[in-house]
Amino acid sequence: MAVGRSGNNGSVFHAVILAGGSGTRLWPLSRAGNPKFLHPLTGTPATLLQATAARLAPIARTEETFVVTGTAHATAVARQLPQLPDDNILVEPSPRDSCAAIGLAAALIELRTPGSVMGSFAADHLVRDEATLAAVVQEAVAGAERGLLMTVGITPTRPETGYGYLHCGETIQGGIRRVVEFKEKPSAEVAAQYLDSGQYLWNASMFVWRTDVFLDALRLQQPDLYAGLQEIAAAWEGDGREKALAEVWPELPKISVDYAVMEDAAAQGLVATVPGDFGWHDVGDFHTLGDVLPSDRGGNVVVGAAGGEVLLEDVSGSIVVPASGRIVAALGLQDVIIVDTPDALLVCPRDRAQDVKKLVDALKLRNSDAV
Amino acid sequence: MAVGRSGNNGSVFHAVILAGGSGTRLWPLSRAGNPKFLHPLTGTPATLLQATAARLAPIARTEETFVVTGTAHATAVARQLPQLPDDNILVEPSPRDSCAAIGLAAALIELRTPGSVMGSFAADHLVRDEATLAAVVQEAVAGAERGLLMTVGITPTRPETGYGYLHCGETIQGGIRRVVEFKEKPSAEVAAQYLDSGQYLWNASMFVWRTDVFLDALRLQQPDLYAGLQEIAAAWEGDGREKALAEVWPELPKISVDYAVMEDAAAQGLVATVPGDFGWHDVGDFHTLGDVLPSDRGGNVVVGAAGGEVLLEDVSGSIVVPASGRIVAALGLQDVIIVDTPDALLVCPRDRAQDVKKLVDALKLRNSDAV
Repeated sequence: MAVGRSGNNGSVFHAVILAGGSGTRLWPLSRAGNPKFLHPLTGTPATLLQATAARLAPIARTEETFVVTGTAHATAVARQLPQLPDDNILVEPSPRDSCAAIGLAAALIELRTPGSVMGSFAADHLVRDEATLAAVVQEAVAGAERGLLMTVGITPTRPETGYGYLHCGETIQGGIRRVVEFKEKPSAEVAAQYLDSGQYLWNASMFVWRTDVFLDALRLQQPDLYAGLQEIAAAWEGDGREKALAEVWPELPKISVDYAVMEDAAAQGLVATVPGDFGWHDVGDFHTLGDVLPSDRGGNVVVGAAGGEVLLEDVSGSIVVPASGRIVAALGLQDVIIVDTPDALLVCPRDRAQDVKKLVDALKLRNSDAV
Repeated sequence: MAVGRSGNNGSVFHAVILAGGSGTRLWPLSRAGNPKFLHPLTGTPATLLQATAARLAPIARTEETFVVTGTAHATAVARQLPQLPDDNILVEPSPRDSCAAIGLAAALIELRTPGSVMGSFAADHLVRDEATLAAVVQEAVAGAERGLLMTVGITPTRPETGYGYLHCGETIQGGIRRVVEFKEKPSAEVAAQYLDSGQYLWNASMFVWRTDVFLDALRLQQPDLYAGLQEIAAAWEGDGREKALAEVWPELPKISVDYAVMEDAAAQGLVATVPGDFGWHDVGDFHTLGDVLPSDRGGNVVVGAAGGEVLLEDVSGSIVVPASGRIVAALGLQDVIIVDTPDALLVCPRDRAQDVKKLVDALKLRNSDAV
């Protein structure tokens, strides 16, 4: 994958992994203090974060791989990815949404290696076909080197209402298509229309661009955010980093990169996409996890290679997470989720997996420690 | 209840509580090492054992109340029933079934107070109407004083196949009827016939008799068991108790009192019964427990007054035992059993409650510590 590592014009490819978000619908496994990307939800002992880094290793050297994460997770990230240089783990003092996180990485990469191409990837997604992902990213790099803000769009396989969509226009070059518009999560009816039309891709929030091109777009559309990030980046290598992070970071606008930059950029014709079909999964809830991970003959998925003892009698289609070291014994169940952690237990049917968020909200109202 | 305390002929009533059995179908709450009678499965903070003792307090003084239990539970029994004299807790070196347990109590009571009337009661049953129970026992005492081996039969409310039955004959006196025959657990069809006939009562293994009458029957029918118990009883108050228990007890025949004495005695016309209708429940499994204990508006039963935090969203007809201190959160479930203990978790539908025994058998095959 040497071609992938440096772009066609010799730019160095940098991978940025966004390790944020708590994964509320994966409670009680995923918590604010122990988010999903730190868990082995991959079907192997690797955590989602480790699997993401391993997937990017063929296309970006460790020196050019960055993680942006929060203060609460910096230690765990550092230990899970010992191959990364210390300075490549960027620790946000507080969560300011994706534009600040991506922008900080872009500003620092641009400062070190002007004109780099960077790709940004979520730490908590699963990809089945990593070779195809690498090829798709390589094609996106070609678009980025032409000055386009590239996204990797996922070819939809169902009328999903849980994702945003990319409305695609004309073909620019090879597999690269213009993105006409970013669409919010649709209704079921609209999602079905999107699927039928063949003109829409899922927005998986994977971006590939030249750092200078992105920073220019940011400067024009979010001047305050741009100025703040430049101030922090300028102070990064000297004694002023802590002070700049402490004083400037908290004032940065809290906004997603889609909303802050990409939507307007698409309207200006600056955004393009490469459709990807590499078995992508946003592991957002336990039901999805059950679909993605390998199951036993009864269609049961037991999550976590180092998990506790599980005894299933006449159980099918169920997802069991034995994460407390206790015995989990189940009898006569179909399509149920059982998540067993040291301080909290969840039991619900798979078709209610989305509603786990409601339980967490109820626990927050009770000021429970277990959220 | 002064009349109950001493029989009509002035005999002193002794209550014997049999605190044995592990309650396999109540796993993982009930264990060999922590059986069900030690748990608060009563709808109040009282354990089943404590509720049994409290129910008998109006009809037997603490000095005349005995518990027969195993070595593993002697300490817990002593602490749960601090009102009982030390010597009234009889500790079996090993389980030898109900005839040895009841016979030991009978032999010791007869030695201390010849011609006493004793009643024997399981430590793990629930009774809703304690005043009626006391009245029924009082009537049984009257039969016992006539020299009959009395049972308290439960008026059946359904064609239950999980209990043995008493086939009743003619009325002897008041509510006392002859027991013609002891019947094993019937098929569903036979159970329905029993119910329709009005001639059958559930055998709840509650017995009331004069200790001398019972010991005579035992001597005739089980001479080895009788001789062994007499040897132990003779040594009880002296230095030889430990030696006798160690040497004689393990050799006693392991047999139930029904099979050893009552079936033949019934054939000889020596057994009678008083029908009882006092809301009796053999708390054998979690499904039954859910029927017996008070439920919330959704029909859910949360067991254990000092249990952990429980969060139920859109859950109905379910039984939750939060016995680990962890949060138990459930969503979108109907008629499910969730039992959460420090080292094991059980999830199953209520209609599979009987099959919990199979899980325990499977765990035993694995040599699990959690049984």
